[in-house]
Amino acid sequence: MSDAPRDIDHLIELMAKLPGLGPRSARRAVLHLIKKRGLLLNPLADAMHAVAVSARECLNCGNIGTSDLCEICQSEKRANGEICVVEDVADLWAMERSQVFKGRYHVLGGTLSALDAVGPEDLRIPKLVDRVISEEVKEVILALNATIDGQTTAHYLAEQFEGSDVQVTSLAQGVPIGGELDYLDDGTISAALKARKSV
Amino acid sequence: MSDAPRDIDHLIELMAKLPGLGPRSARRAVLHLIKKRGLLLNPLADAMHAVAVSARECLNCGNIGTSDLCEICQSEKRANGEICVVEDVADLWAMERSQVFKGRYHVLGGTLSALDAVGPEDLRIPKLVDRVISEEVKEVILALNATIDGQTTAHYLAEQFEGSDVQVTSLAQGVPIGGELDYLDDGTISAALKARKSV
Repeated sequence: MSDAPRDIDHLIELMAKLPGLGPRSARRAVLHLIKKRGLLLNPLADAMHAVAVSARECLNCGNIGTSDLCEICQSEKRANGEICVVEDVADLWAMERSQVFKGRYHVLGGTLSALDAVGPEDLRIPKLVDRVISEEVKEVILALNATIDGQTTAHYLAEQFEGSDVQVTSLAQGVPIGGELDYLDDGTISAALKARKSV
Repeated sequence: MSDAPRDIDHLIELMAKLPGLGPRSARRAVLHLIKKRGLLLNPLADAMHAVAVSARECLNCGNIGTSDLCEICQSEKRANGEICVVEDVADLWAMERSQVFKGRYHVLGGTLSALDAVGPEDLRIPKLVDRVISEEVKEVILALNATIDGQTTAHYLAEQFEGSDVQVTSLAQGVPIGGELDYLDDGTISAALKARKSV
């Protein structure tokens, strides 16, 4: 209840469903939008309509694009025999921002989880096994989150390719660039110590 | 740069301009919207278009409504000789949620500020003086924020009505309901002590 007219109340309710916004910040956002009607409210509504019409999940890798095959899967340059496995599209975007990886991706759409009853067939794992064969993949790079579910999923995936010629690797764990030891958790420090390298 | 297609990038840029959202939370919100296209993205775009068309600033009090006079200014029941002065529409909504005040409002649209060069004519102060006469107001209740600028504005407004029959009051300051003394700042405790009442 915000005692705003019905249209505005409805908009506040919908905005409050976005991750990171609650009822109070949704009210603040809506008031801001109304003040900046021409600059922000109308363009935002148009942009949402455009995305609602154009956004599509890539049938091959699960990335979000504007056609049935995303730009990365369409590009022959990215077919270098490497597939980077990520949990979510947000992780794919994070990898792309670093501009280091030149291969293709595979978005699982989550992690295996006994608690939430998520099994291999609920994720895009069978499709990954197919792709490794059809795209002649030589290396599967696991870029899963360093959580328990992420690591369980990584172990499961590594097992799938045991005995085949496919190399399975995972991102290195250690001290983040710019990280201060004093602010790091024990797990990270012990992982970094175990994986120490000669300089 | 998020390596998302152009439509999606554009939507992320616009979302990141909302108060309380930055680039990272905007990306998260947009991915959530795309996943919930039918349930959230389309309805949100429609709701924004509806508000962009219907929302209007009340010419009398500055509240946001759907016609030139807001519902509160249209209602004869609310013409009880009391006007509550607030800084912003968000404050008006907060007052209305408490369902205690039965009079009308006046939204200043900010506070006087020497630093930001905001003078009385930049706010809705002349209109307030007009309304006090035309609506036969007996009491002006100042519900301004307890900041320096808010209190400066309150003093200025009190001066405007000095010598007239209009009573100027302000919200009581003290310990909030449910507040624990240990977590309160010194200023609030000393204000509450000065304004102590016999029980």
